[in-house]
Amino acid sequence: MSFILWFTGLSGAGKSTLAQSVSKALRERGVTRLEVLDGDEVRTHISAGLGFSREDRRTNILRIGYVARLLARNGTVAITAAISPYTEDRDEVRAASTAPFVEVFAAASLDAVAERDVKGLYKKAFAGEITNFTGVSDPYEAPSKAEIVVDTGVETVAESTQKILRGLEALGLIAAPRATSEARP
Amino acid sequence: MSFILWFTGLSGAGKSTLAQSVSKALRERGVTRLEVLDGDEVRTHISAGLGFSREDRRTNILRIGYVARLLARNGTVAITAAISPYTEDRDEVRAASTAPFVEVFAAASLDAVAERDVKGLYKKAFAGEITNFTGVSDPYEAPSKAEIVVDTGVETVAESTQKILRGLEALGLIAAPRATSEARP
Repeated sequence: MSFILWFTGLSGAGKSTLAQSVSKALRERGVTRLEVLDGDEVRTHISAGLGFSREDRRTNILRIGYVARLLARNGTVAITAAISPYTEDRDEVRAASTAPFVEVFAAASLDAVAERDVKGLYKKAFAGEITNFTGVSDPYEAPSKAEIVVDTGVETVAESTQKILRGLEALGLIAAPRATSEARP
Repeated sequence: MSFILWFTGLSGAGKSTLAQSVSKALRERGVTRLEVLDGDEVRTHISAGLGFSREDRRTNILRIGYVARLLARNGTVAITAAISPYTEDRDEVRAASTAPFVEVFAAASLDAVAERDVKGLYKKAFAGEITNFTGVSDPYEAPSKAEIVVDTGVETVAESTQKILRGLEALGLIAAPRATSEARP
């Protein structure tokens, strides 16, 4: 069963890390057709030249959505990890997909990601050295109907990964792992 | 077995028509995972805003190549139908693909496509109303090592389609159809 697993969340909320972690877990469960479309990688390959205006952000998301749905409708799991700050754009991608679309909200608070500031970007954004920075000087519209919500400001990567896998099981998109009995006679 | 079937040829040489025809034939032979990345469709979805300069043409081809190889490395046959006039760009896409890359040269002559002029573009190009038009005011570098060559200026669509299918069989990428005996007792 193929599907689109669409992460959304602030910069530094752990989308790419979780995309890789879920990817690894799915491969261990036997999923062989799978691609992670990471935000940065996609900007290199299909969105070079696009900036961070409202229109360019929209174009970027629709391009990722296009690639993801080509993959998913041919039996490949597509995991995306772009900020995708606008509800309208996410919903447009959702509506265009014929394969199941699973939105995962990496719901770390602005305080949490700015405190961590892994790439040092928030410091620059708050200082005004980077403009159009999501959550600081550009909007982030949190999803109200995400299929899965993980609080990456609090949970460990392993905890969030497990939550996502259980969510996919509950949606019937992956099988639950077989119970392994350790107590054998 | 998945692969990239990469058409190249002048505007009006029949690339899109053959892409659709080969796609249909492959589906009839049981190929279920397959996408046609048509030049015009791709320009809408991932290359909007790009023009026809040397650099923009290159960017367009590399983007199509990126999507094609994501598909092909996950078991989906990717058929592309962009002019792709430059050998360097085609070879770069070929080199980046881990799945087999099959170049199909739709080798209709300029005279043949200009004579037919299905979309009325050659008339405008020769009149100078369209600039950077491949074969007229922009280069077309014919491939010297295409795996399959079809002379779409002379052959019918059915003939070229058969030639391509035989080529794919010869490359071991699809199975030959089972012989059906018409003479039954």
